[in-house]
Amino acid sequence: MDAFDIETLADPSLESPVLVEGLPGVGHVGKLAAEHLLEEFDATLVRRIYSEHFPPQVTVEDGRTTLACAEVHAIGDADRDMLVLTGDHQAADGPGHYRITGAFLDVADEFDVERIYALGGVPTGELVDEPSVLGAATSATLVEELEGVGVEFREKEPAGGIVGVSGLLLGLGERRGFEAACLMGETSGYLVDPKSARAVLEALQEAADFEVGYEALEDRAEEMEEVVTRIRQMEQGAPTGDEDLRYIG
Amino acid sequence: MDAFDIETLADPSLESPVLVEGLPGVGHVGKLAAEHLLEEFDATLVRRIYSEHFPPQVTVEDGRTTLACAEVHAIGDADRDMLVLTGDHQAADGPGHYRITGAFLDVADEFDVERIYALGGVPTGELVDEPSVLGAATSATLVEELEGVGVEFREKEPAGGIVGVSGLLLGLGERRGFEAACLMGETSGYLVDPKSARAVLEALQEAADFEVGYEALEDRAEEMEEVVTRIRQMEQGAPTGDEDLRYIG
Amino acid sequence: MDAFDIETLADPSLESPVLVEGLPGVGHVGKLAAEHLLEEFDATLVRRIYSEHFPPQVTVEDGRTTLACAEVHAIGDADRDMLVLTGDHQAADGPGHYRITGAFLDVADEFDVERIYALGGVPTGELVDEPSVLGAATSATLVEELEGVGVEFREKEPAGGIVGVSGLLLGLGERRGFEAACLMGETSGYLVDPKSARAVLEALQEAADFEVGYEALEDRAEEMEEVVTRIRQMEQGAPTGDEDLRYIG
Amino acid sequence: MDAFDIETLADPSLESPVLVEGLPGVGHVGKLAAEHLLEEFDATLVRRIYSEHFPPQVTVEDGRTTLACAEVHAIGDADRDMLVLTGDHQAADGPGHYRITGAFLDVADEFDVERIYALGGVPTGELVDEPSVLGAATSATLVEELEGVGVEFREKEPAGGIVGVSGLLLGLGERRGFEAACLMGETSGYLVDPKSARAVLEALQEAADFEVGYEALEDRAEEMEEVVTRIRQMEQGAPTGDEDLRYIG
Repeated sequence: MDAFDIETLADPSLESPVLVEGLPGVGHVGKLAAEHLLEEFDATLVRRIYSEHFPPQVTVEDGRTTLACAEVHAIGDADRDMLVLTGDHQAADGPGHYRITGAFLDVADEFDVERIYALGGVPTGELVDEPSVLGAATSATLVEELEGVGVEFREKEPAGGIVGVSGLLLGLGERRGFEAACLMGETSGYLVDPKSARAVLEALQEAADFEVGYEALEDRAEEMEEVVTRIRQMEQGAPTGDEDLRYIG
Repeated sequence: MDAFDIETLADPSLESPVLVEGLPGVGHVGKLAAEHLLEEFDATLVRRIYSEHFPPQVTVEDGRTTLACAEVHAIGDADRDMLVLTGDHQAADGPGHYRITGAFLDVADEFDVERIYALGGVPTGELVDEPSVLGAATSATLVEELEGVGVEFREKEPAGGIVGVSGLLLGLGERRGFEAACLMGETSGYLVDPKSARAVLEALQEAADFEVGYEALEDRAEEMEEVVTRIRQMEQGAPTGDEDLRYIG
Repeated sequence: MDAFDIETLADPSLESPVLVEGLPGVGHVGKLAAEHLLEEFDATLVRRIYSEHFPPQVTVEDGRTTLACAEVHAIGDADRDMLVLTGDHQAADGPGHYRITGAFLDVADEFDVERIYALGGVPTGELVDEPSVLGAATSATLVEELEGVGVEFREKEPAGGIVGVSGLLLGLGERRGFEAACLMGETSGYLVDPKSARAVLEALQEAADFEVGYEALEDRAEEMEEVVTRIRQMEQGAPTGDEDLRYIG
Repeated sequence: MDAFDIETLADPSLESPVLVEGLPGVGHVGKLAAEHLLEEFDATLVRRIYSEHFPPQVTVEDGRTTLACAEVHAIGDADRDMLVLTGDHQAADGPGHYRITGAFLDVADEFDVERIYALGGVPTGELVDEPSVLGAATSATLVEELEGVGVEFREKEPAGGIVGVSGLLLGLGERRGFEAACLMGETSGYLVDPKSARAVLEALQEAADFEVGYEALEDRAEEMEEVVTRIRQMEQGAPTGDEDLRYIG
């Protein structure tokens, strides 16, 4: 294998698709949101991207191994054609982030993607009841457009910029002629957060002009709600039993 | 030296050999098992693989130095022809794991290897009397076949996937057309574990269809048994003398 | 993107410009000094240097993202033509420092730069009222010349040498035929230090033979003076209120 | 600069020179020994090796900067022609150690070096009055030869092998057809150790068949002896004044 190995599994024809990215990150917001799209629509796996910049490992499911990779699915039955990029890993080294993002943009080029939405979470440090969605984008026009659908733009937020593949999809994407935006749901940073993922998806569906249901995500949100309730009880000194409240992924 | 330097020491002709890998890892299970094969059979050193991705060091034995490397031995006098890959090092960096595994697969290609067995241990956190052997494989057919010889496949185990060369021999191997399986003996994770290595070899000999004796491994197992007995006494608060019970390699 | 991507935004003609570097470092002395030049003169952005050796991130301002980069501005309205190199990042890995500095020197070559001034701070560990400016240079002639304008050269200082882009602009610059000097303002190491930046600029304007005002820098110096006053009160046990005295950037 | 930049400063003709390496390491034994040779003989600087695998820094002396490098000096006025490799740095990353050593061997090739002596220290953890010199070599013949001049070879010592450039000069050197040995003086590991350096040089002069005086090294040894005396007093609970006993380099 060279530094990259892009496996082609299907090549459906899509019309002006948007690329939606949801790799692991704060609160797994982006990953939950992207995976929800794959559940709600009829998605076809079109590419697997392998790279020596991913961790050196295979995952095991039902005894079968899969080499660390990112996957791109095509969705053709929504109001808007989409490519959904998801996976279990970020790059394991700095230049690797640049190179892996470059490989993702190569795939976006193949499908004539014109706009990219990177989905993620922004940590607030405390439990959030009604998460807002913060935005960042490659152009002032796109900032305005997203403000029109309720995405918030706050001065100098997020303070540390946007790190990893999400950030580089905007930074490198712009260099390569893509319009790109990052939609970040507020989230505590301590828990997997399906509610924040839903907020992000609601903004995305407005921005990209498609409709999606939320049943699966609601079920997960309810599960997490119970965890949150127990945490609130703990904060108030109430007994909580011996449930395991570690970060759940 | 380029990034790799593969030294050819012999080129015996082998018939449909399997590649058996046993590099250092949990409980040194894979390494013990692979080295046991080299002791029991008439093994010929065929390749040494040097790489800048191994640690920058030489080992010293009887005053003579050897550059960090992995070694491939050929076994032609067993019921089944084998290549045995062993050594003292894993790669020292992430991309290095990918590249070193790629070099190993190049050697496997040269010898027309069709199946790869990566041997290793899976940590249980406690002493195991009768270690099971867990499996993972690149195809459902191979999973079934291994279940037939007593290898266990448990849902989502090992939880963290398989890391390092063992994992990549399956992951990259599959990408290059090899059938590959990983056989992992249960082991505490605290001690070198010849008993677990034997369990792994017993599964391997069934799967790859050859016979091997266990005398040398039994001797080592008995030594370790004494260590284990002392540990058990310690756990029960019995006095243990001042023996050194640190991890022994 | 390859390892580097140098974006050309303008190509003004400059006469024997000096290159002035002020990337982030101790007390942000170099960065403050370089940015002050950009404020005081009519500066044109001529190059942006992107690299996989910068951290994988974008900064966000008013919702718009900018890929990690270094910027080179041209100043044509001072007594001396200048190129000013500044940015928010150093390289993120060792070889990256060498490669990024090489890219900077490529730009210097394009503009026929003959002399390079790397600006920075040297930590003293305590608050300094009247910061001296320490120097280091690629030739004995240049050392003498700088002594003539009040730059101090102390035996074996700075003790640890000069690390990062500033050091390499001298080290690699000399290898490529540039004359180069480093001007380092004494600074505590705990606070952003506009006073030290001013001292460095005063040395630079003598050395490079141009004049510049200091109003903007004086305003920042006064703000910091208040912080310093509060710190001095703290040292004398006086109550300080609950102001946040963390490192301010 | 490419990954390497080898500067040629002189090209004297040498007869079957040996290459003597003394880079920084345990007790600075190798570096002290190599630098002593440069003081005692009439040495000519023949090569400087620069590399992006050295730390990104310049050293400063009398205001003048020098890019991180290793230096090779030629000695033509000893009983035996020598190349002496010394410097202030080891490589900063794993593959870098391999590549830098490869560059050193390129220089050895240019001068038709046939034997390499890597000098260093082996830590004992306690103060040593009469340091032995341990050896390691690329061939059994060389092991025997060195035993003949009092170098000790102990089973499985040094236990962790030999790490860094010294180890690789043997490991990679052997791969490229050089005979190479490592001479390691016993040393506490806590202090710069000129006495150990002298022991190593005494072994080297026997092995390589040349004579050298020790005055300069004796002076340094006496200085260190005083430090050692104070440490011994401390160990016996005697008052020691407030001298600084940190590792002195």
